[in-house]
Amino acid sequence: MKPSLPKGTRDFTPEVFAKRKYIFNVIENVFKNHGYKAIETPAVENLKTLTGKYGEEGDRLIFKILNSGDYLNKIEGSELSSIDSKKLTPKISEKALRYDLTIPFARFVVMNRNEITFPFKRYQIQPVWRADRPQKGRYREFYQCDVDVIGSNSVLNEVDLIQIIDEVFAELKIPVSIHVNHRKVLDGILAELNLKDNTNAVLIALDKLDKIGLEKVKEELSDRIDSNTIGLLFDKIGAIENGGIDSISAEKGNQGKEELNKIFGQFKGDNKLSKNNDLLFDIKLARGLDYYTGTIIEVKAKDVEMGSICGGGRYDDLTGVFGLKDVSGVGVSFGADRIYDVLSSMDSFKDVKLYSSKVMFVNFGEATLAQINKCMSELRKNDVSCELYPDEAKMKKQFSYANTNNIPYVISVGDEELKSSKAKLKDMNEGTEETIAFDDLVKRFSNG
Amino acid sequence: MKPSLPKGTRDFTPEVFAKRKYIFNVIENVFKNHGYKAIETPAVENLKTLTGKYGEEGDRLIFKILNSGDYLNKIEGSELSSIDSKKLTPKISEKALRYDLTIPFARFVVMNRNEITFPFKRYQIQPVWRADRPQKGRYREFYQCDVDVIGSNSVLNEVDLIQIIDEVFAELKIPVSIHVNHRKVLDGILAELNLKDNTNAVLIALDKLDKIGLEKVKEELSDRIDSNTIGLLFDKIGAIENGGIDSISAEKGNQGKEELNKIFGQFKGDNKLSKNNDLLFDIKLARGLDYYTGTIIEVKAKDVEMGSICGGGRYDDLTGVFGLKDVSGVGVSFGADRIYDVLSSMDSFKDVKLYSSKVMFVNFGEATLAQINKCMSELRKNDVSCELYPDEAKMKKQFSYANTNNIPYVISVGDEELKSSKAKLKDMNEGTEETIAFDDLVKRFSNG
Repeated sequence: MKPSLPKGTRDFTPEVFAKRKYIFNVIENVFKNHGYKAIETPAVENLKTLTGKYGEEGDRLIFKILNSGDYLNKIEGSELSSIDSKKLTPKISEKALRYDLTIPFARFVVMNRNEITFPFKRYQIQPVWRADRPQKGRYREFYQCDVDVIGSNSVLNEVDLIQIIDEVFAELKIPVSIHVNHRKVLDGILAELNLKDNTNAVLIALDKLDKIGLEKVKEELSDRIDSNTIGLLFDKIGAIENGGIDSISAEKGNQGKEELNKIFGQFKGDNKLSKNNDLLFDIKLARGLDYYTGTIIEVKAKDVEMGSICGGGRYDDLTGVFGLKDVSGVGVSFGADRIYDVLSSMDSFKDVKLYSSKVMFVNFGEATLAQINKCMSELRKNDVSCELYPDEAKMKKQFSYANTNNIPYVISVGDEELKSSKAKLKDMNEGTEETIAFDDLVKRFSNG
Repeated sequence: MKPSLPKGTRDFTPEVFAKRKYIFNVIENVFKNHGYKAIETPAVENLKTLTGKYGEEGDRLIFKILNSGDYLNKIEGSELSSIDSKKLTPKISEKALRYDLTIPFARFVVMNRNEITFPFKRYQIQPVWRADRPQKGRYREFYQCDVDVIGSNSVLNEVDLIQIIDEVFAELKIPVSIHVNHRKVLDGILAELNLKDNTNAVLIALDKLDKIGLEKVKEELSDRIDSNTIGLLFDKIGAIENGGIDSISAEKGNQGKEELNKIFGQFKGDNKLSKNNDLLFDIKLARGLDYYTGTIIEVKAKDVEMGSICGGGRYDDLTGVFGLKDVSGVGVSFGADRIYDVLSSMDSFKDVKLYSSKVMFVNFGEATLAQINKCMSELRKNDVSCELYPDEAKMKKQFSYANTNNIPYVISVGDEELKSSKAKLKDMNEGTEETIAFDDLVKRFSNG
């Protein structure tokens, strides 16, 4: 049997794992420094927890799990013959793989509400699954790194998240621009032009401006909206684009304007972003139209063409669907895979070191094992990773193992060394050799 | 809609997550110190990769994933009406959730064989899924922590794994006994008594000796084996139990005897196990009868009734089923959930601290935010975790948040503090207060 993997899934070799771990560690450390606490939820949720939360398209992309046992035993044969997959699914599948981390988090908050204190600041780094068409940079199983605050309306939470984004990408050395918009400002414009009924169409079109250009966007909208109103809409958008937050008219979008001013006001004077990162008000940013109700945030790498590498926003009443009303949430999600691809294309993994051990002991056979085990035990007690080559293979093979595994030091303990209580130590990078007393090994390696 | 979780799955709150993380960190650190490298494989495997590897019972317990899209479109209605679930499953499900980490690892080795060096030492800490009947301590989604060496026949790998087990449980402060047996020794006994055809029945019975006692075991076997042979079998077992490895007869089980002697020989003199742990030869140990071919290892907590908390063994030809012949493997798996339960019952989590931040800044409103942001930025640059309470709530509420989140220090910056460039610092554990210059904050907290 020739082994294979499902479409859109991947193995991570030790080398790739180490590079990914580096990204997760940077992100996690910033989350912790900002006082967020880790939770985990199961990969498998009840199907009814997930359906109806991601739109029709999302529902189709949820991986459903077949009920265990004889899942057809309650269905009549005659019923089966006329059934289609859509009708059959709810009868044979009660569970599914999570589609994102936000809905499971909302469920978590409601089910654990008596054990947590609000505002609740959590992060969560776990995989999610989507039956999307796999393509370059898009997988069916991928990790999300989410950070959210729930139970506080203050825009200082947005400020905190922007600081987190700034610190993560400064640490990863990826220059980014952080785009910020506000759903209520967009709503204000739509209300002013009586376009409320076409909200989704307008927002989707706005979001495409960068990709397909103004003329194509106007053409798309012309099916639904008269050309005069389209003209007014883009005049307005253009004016706000040029004039900034101050040029937002007060009448309808005032809460949005006020919040944007508060957010941007915190990044002045001594509290600017890191030097390679920018914070921009971007009236054309319209992502997440189904759920964001306040601030919208999107992050793009400046020097690499990659789309959004982090994004999020505020959603009022996140937990309402599960019976806990009036709890506002705000959060962002870092896309580990895209960040990985950005760092790869920037050749930034040079410094991520992978070696299995710091020291490998050559295997010369039975007689020296007791001494080697003693040395290794001492080294490990001092957190110096080491291993013994398990077979009495030829020297060439043993050294070649050390080499391909990037083990920087190889120690030989033969009969002579046993007698003199001194080991032969080879520096694999420099190619130099030295003799060192067994008793000095720990001191030699325990400092870096 | 009242939210719920699928049977046998769990949420991990920050407190539980922190305790689990402590266990994973101890295990992972020992793995690393022994030169093992991390890999990850996808949660979702092709169904045919998994089926037929875990016995008939195992196949039933695999969670299958429904094909995406219109999965019935290739099945005729007439065909459907007469079909049963067993026949339908392979037509509507091509993917499944992994059942353990060993088979995915074997697949990984075969698919990545040109990128890895043998012997290949890997560890893997990821969840697995089984449609088992949930009960106390048994979940449908749970983590395994596996460590394996593949491509080396040397029993020094077994020695290394036993050292790993010893170090993990010494570090976790769980006294354990490590039981070791050898499949070839058991095979030798069965061959001597012409019981080869009843291998599985005998091994299952042996494994039950501790639980149900000798008489019941004999009764179970009497259906298949004559009472004289049963008598001889248990005489033999009893003799080896009393006599130790030396009393194993040489004729058939000699390779097993030799390997056991080599393994136990490495734990003499200076290289004994940690003082609370024991290494025992246990002729009655017969787990994993479908796959283990050499050494068998099982670990039990001495002071807590919990069954096996770690186990493993050697499997010849692990990767043969995927087309790579003659590659021997040996490994053990740590059960994080049972270890968690053992530590809970020993009240051993006292020292695992959970606080979201080290320092919380009280929110006095707009005027002090710039100064607070500056202080927090400096603290975080020095890896001191801190947060600002996001709302201008009453003092009582803000301090109560710090309290329930176990934040040990609260800093107040009001108008007066702004003027004097000094903050008010409260030690939440001691109840003491001090005044500290903004410029001294980093020094105050960056050392522990």
